[in-house]
Amino acid sequence: MSVLGVVGCGLLGGSFALAAREQKCFERVLGRDLSRSVEQTAQDLGVIDDVWSSGTAVDGVCVAVPTHAIAPVVKALSEEIKSDIPIFDVGSVKASILKELDDVPSNYIPCHPIAGSHTSGPEASRADLFQGSVCVISPTHSTDGALLELVGEWWSEVGARVITMPAHSHDESVALTSHLPHLVSAAAVELLMNQDDSTEELLGSGFRDFSRIAAGDAEMWRSIFVNNLDNVRLSFQALATRIEYILALAESDPDALERKLEHIASFRDSLNGG
Amino acid sequence: MSVLGVVGCGLLGGSFALAAREQKCFERVLGRDLSRSVEQTAQDLGVIDDVWSSGTAVDGVCVAVPTHAIAPVVKALSEEIKSDIPIFDVGSVKASILKELDDVPSNYIPCHPIAGSHTSGPEASRADLFQGSVCVISPTHSTDGALLELVGEWWSEVGARVITMPAHSHDESVALTSHLPHLVSAAAVELLMNQDDSTEELLGSGFRDFSRIAAGDAEMWRSIFVNNLDNVRLSFQALATRIEYILALAESDPDALERKLEHIASFRDSLNGG
Repeated sequence: MSVLGVVGCGLLGGSFALAAREQKCFERVLGRDLSRSVEQTAQDLGVIDDVWSSGTAVDGVCVAVPTHAIAPVVKALSEEIKSDIPIFDVGSVKASILKELDDVPSNYIPCHPIAGSHTSGPEASRADLFQGSVCVISPTHSTDGALLELVGEWWSEVGARVITMPAHSHDESVALTSHLPHLVSAAAVELLMNQDDSTEELLGSGFRDFSRIAAGDAEMWRSIFVNNLDNVRLSFQALATRIEYILALAESDPDALERKLEHIASFRDSLNGG
Repeated sequence: MSVLGVVGCGLLGGSFALAAREQKCFERVLGRDLSRSVEQTAQDLGVIDDVWSSGTAVDGVCVAVPTHAIAPVVKALSEEIKSDIPIFDVGSVKASILKELDDVPSNYIPCHPIAGSHTSGPEASRADLFQGSVCVISPTHSTDGALLELVGEWWSEVGARVITMPAHSHDESVALTSHLPHLVSAAAVELLMNQDDSTEELLGSGFRDFSRIAAGDAEMWRSIFVNNLDNVRLSFQALATRIEYILALAESDPDALERKLEHIASFRDSLNGG
């Protein structure tokens, strides 16, 4: 019987567990979580079949913990399990993990599924979370080719399109597409928190859409900002430069501003997924 | 038969027309638009009953044009119609309009319904657009009290909760709750446009939520930025200061960062409307 081990039974680990069992990549899922109550909830909900005791053999491990904890968990796992068993993660940053691992185990496959939600925990897990998503894999020169392929197949089976990308390119790109929006959205919510109540009455659906991501899991986001700080800083500098330019156009050349906004609006309209 | 005149037959003017007729505030709606094709579409869709010819008497006028055009339209209307007929607008800024009007007609009721969409045009109009929304009214010392009350009743009947607020407070607040998010979202989309295609593949639902507003009508937003520029600049400075502080915490005190993100996330979660 093929067994998946999951370390971290929150939204992503839980959803991979549900999806991988549903797609018959694995017949059984064993899970661990630093929080006993999360472990218990995941078991009660059938997200995992049982708690993963040390020493129990598995055929693959999904590491779904906050990014700062990934390298230590991978190190510990590589001593616990055989080197022909793939260990893959779901972390939103890659370069800092590889740097921290130093001597990267050949059975560690660095993954980042672009899927998630502003909700979290095992109770938010969904078997279809990865359907239609993209999963980035960032192999290193030491990555085992056969295990890389095997993990890629699992991601395909749970519904993700796999693309490979070097860790540093991945981290630069997600700083812009994910970490910067979260930062800006969180800061805007913080500004709002410090206004009087009448300002809050003026919130429309635009602000709610814009700020939805700011409700995301604080522990996860703390790690992301810490682990991808340089790229996030650079992205914010680039954003601030664009913003200053847009404001300068509003002052000096409103027609050019309108053309720019038109161009931006039609590009945004063209993005898939509404 | 009571007749509403609508100047500007886009999303907001069209939606007020549909809602006001449905709620029997008016029996008939006459409309004008600078664009003959918008006028025609509004008529074809039954959003307006007929084109509003100069000289035809009405019982109220809804001015739903971009903010830079509101003062000139109100001026022209106050020469065309009697001074006991209320003229109200739906513009997202208020102070610059009042300033431009100089001698504010007593029958002009400055309104801003907090409702809208990233879609636009008469075809996007919906009779329920204002249901559950807030409509800000910013009377001046010259505003006619009876007409103010009448316009407030119309807004209530189409589903809005009316609050009154001085124009300058309104403009400061919406700079933060609406104009700043649009600015930041548009600038982030522009950054993305200038990346290679692989970055675009990494977009998740978070970015799509965050950037949805950037698809909004360019002409409308151009006017808003021009007309509320000082407040938008100040809001962005405040945002940038918060962002720098969050990044500094990521560097120096990740535990404090996590507490801050937790606080922000739970406040965001508490906002109505998901």
